[in-house]
Amino acid sequence: MPRIALSHARLPATLEITVVDEFGRPRAQPIAAERALTVYLNRREIVTLMTLGADPEALVVGYLRNQGLVERLEDLQAVQVDWEVEAAAVVTRREPADLATRLGQRTVTTGCGQGTVFGRLLEATDLSRLPDTTLRQSVLYALLENLGAYNETYRSAGAVHGCALCRQAAVLDFVEDVGRHNAVDTLAGRQWLAADPGPAPDIFYTTGRLTSEMVLKVAQMGIAVLVSRSGVTQKGVELAERFGVLLVARAKGRRFQAIGPEGRLRWDAVPPRRPGDRC
Amino acid sequence: MPRIALSHARLPATLEITVVDEFGRPRAQPIAAERALTVYLNRREIVTLMTLGADPEALVVGYLRNQGLVERLEDLQAVQVDWEVEAAAVVTRREPADLATRLGQRTVTTGCGQGTVFGRLLEATDLSRLPDTTLRQSVLYALLENLGAYNETYRSAGAVHGCALCRQAAVLDFVEDVGRHNAVDTLAGRQWLAADPGPAPDIFYTTGRLTSEMVLKVAQMGIAVLVSRSGVTQKGVELAERFGVLLVARAKGRRFQAIGPEGRLRWDAVPPRRPGDRC
Repeated sequence: MPRIALSHARLPATLEITVVDEFGRPRAQPIAAERALTVYLNRREIVTLMTLGADPEALVVGYLRNQGLVERLEDLQAVQVDWEVEAAAVVTRREPADLATRLGQRTVTTGCGQGTVFGRLLEATDLSRLPDTTLRQSVLYALLENLGAYNETYRSAGAVHGCALCRQAAVLDFVEDVGRHNAVDTLAGRQWLAADPGPAPDIFYTTGRLTSEMVLKVAQMGIAVLVSRSGVTQKGVELAERFGVLLVARAKGRRFQAIGPEGRLRWDAVPPRRPGDRC
Repeated sequence: MPRIALSHARLPATLEITVVDEFGRPRAQPIAAERALTVYLNRREIVTLMTLGADPEALVVGYLRNQGLVERLEDLQAVQVDWEVEAAAVVTRREPADLATRLGQRTVTTGCGQGTVFGRLLEATDLSRLPDTTLRQSVLYALLENLGAYNETYRSAGAVHGCALCRQAAVLDFVEDVGRHNAVDTLAGRQWLAADPGPAPDIFYTTGRLTSEMVLKVAQMGIAVLVSRSGVTQKGVELAERFGVLLVARAKGRRFQAIGPEGRLRWDAVPPRRPGDRC
């Protein structure tokens, strides 16, 4: 990996405030941090991201990569985050020739859209890259159990989304942020910056909804299985079909709803029917 | 109200797809619609919003208003939504002098940020407007009960956020959308377009988190009490303090957490303590 001057400006993800509960009693309550971080690419202001601030350098790198504003890791020279001025100064050795155009095309999306250049990303996304991953029900259940250990900030403070890169039932990396697109970008940034990328993820998990932008961003990462605790939207399903992505929505405990290519899900752990189950 | 040529291009908020549940059984499942709507202001492309499509004209008008791209209702001449081309053509009689600058300043925020011009909105927000609304606990409980009847799309399809304008315990208007900022903008658009605005809302409810942008948008509407089913973030609390806004977070059933000015919440319905209650 080329030498990149990286700051390490991590901040605690939560802070404690005093709230008053329904009995009129003051109580200490952890809440999610939310910090403004303005990104400057070679002194040009690009965007202001609202983030937990738990891994700002990876967030900025992943954002610039996913927006197509930095094309190759080698182009990165420095990423310096300074919370005093709420700024991330990024210096690159090379800019995309059509940077101005790319900056002009920002499109706003659902989820916690980061003004993604949606249309262009859609064209740029190489579908042929997507593997034909199958998912065993037993692996899904094991993964959901493993994930239980991770959503630290959410459990204490709420108000965040969690996203994870997984290899079958193993959680490779997990990130929480106030916006789930920040979490995805941070995962992408970490992968890109990692000296040793390790095993390739084949399953993506999110606590958030499977909207068009989530499906698109994950497809860009070459992952063909998306698991979510929440529901799906129409465009999310359309894109998944188009990309051949398997969606597993409303995945909680034993429950889930699979949407996508026949035969990609292997029913090797069908739970015993209980009176409580819907029919 | 000046004459405005408005289309009425409402579409159903949900559609039904077939999912396969954990028992391998196909099941019909309603999902939230998610449609791309590109907004053109006097033939200039402004933004693409991902929306349920349940009230696109109000969404577009509210978005343009909240972004400061249309300053007065009288400036609006026509809002024509055509789903065939996924476009909303807006014609105005007058544009802000510094429209170009305003379009250039887009900032991305948490929630389902719509690339709001956050900094500028912050300066533009007139704090003196905010009333000193007090909230009785009994009114809060009555309101939460009344709200139960509204989140139709969420109950059937999930994957949407709901927002409501309320007058004490009465729900004046309720909107759901795939992005909660779309819901807020739609409420603002409807208010602006209403021939008879009716009673002024004094409480805002959202199923989503109380982030900086939500607090800011609601403060702009002159409402000083925010109620949410979800949690709060640091910047949301900071802005609420600055604006003198009362936040009521994690409001479900009898439970809630109040944050804000002393004495703005009246404890007239403290629930009986049950063994189940945390202490």
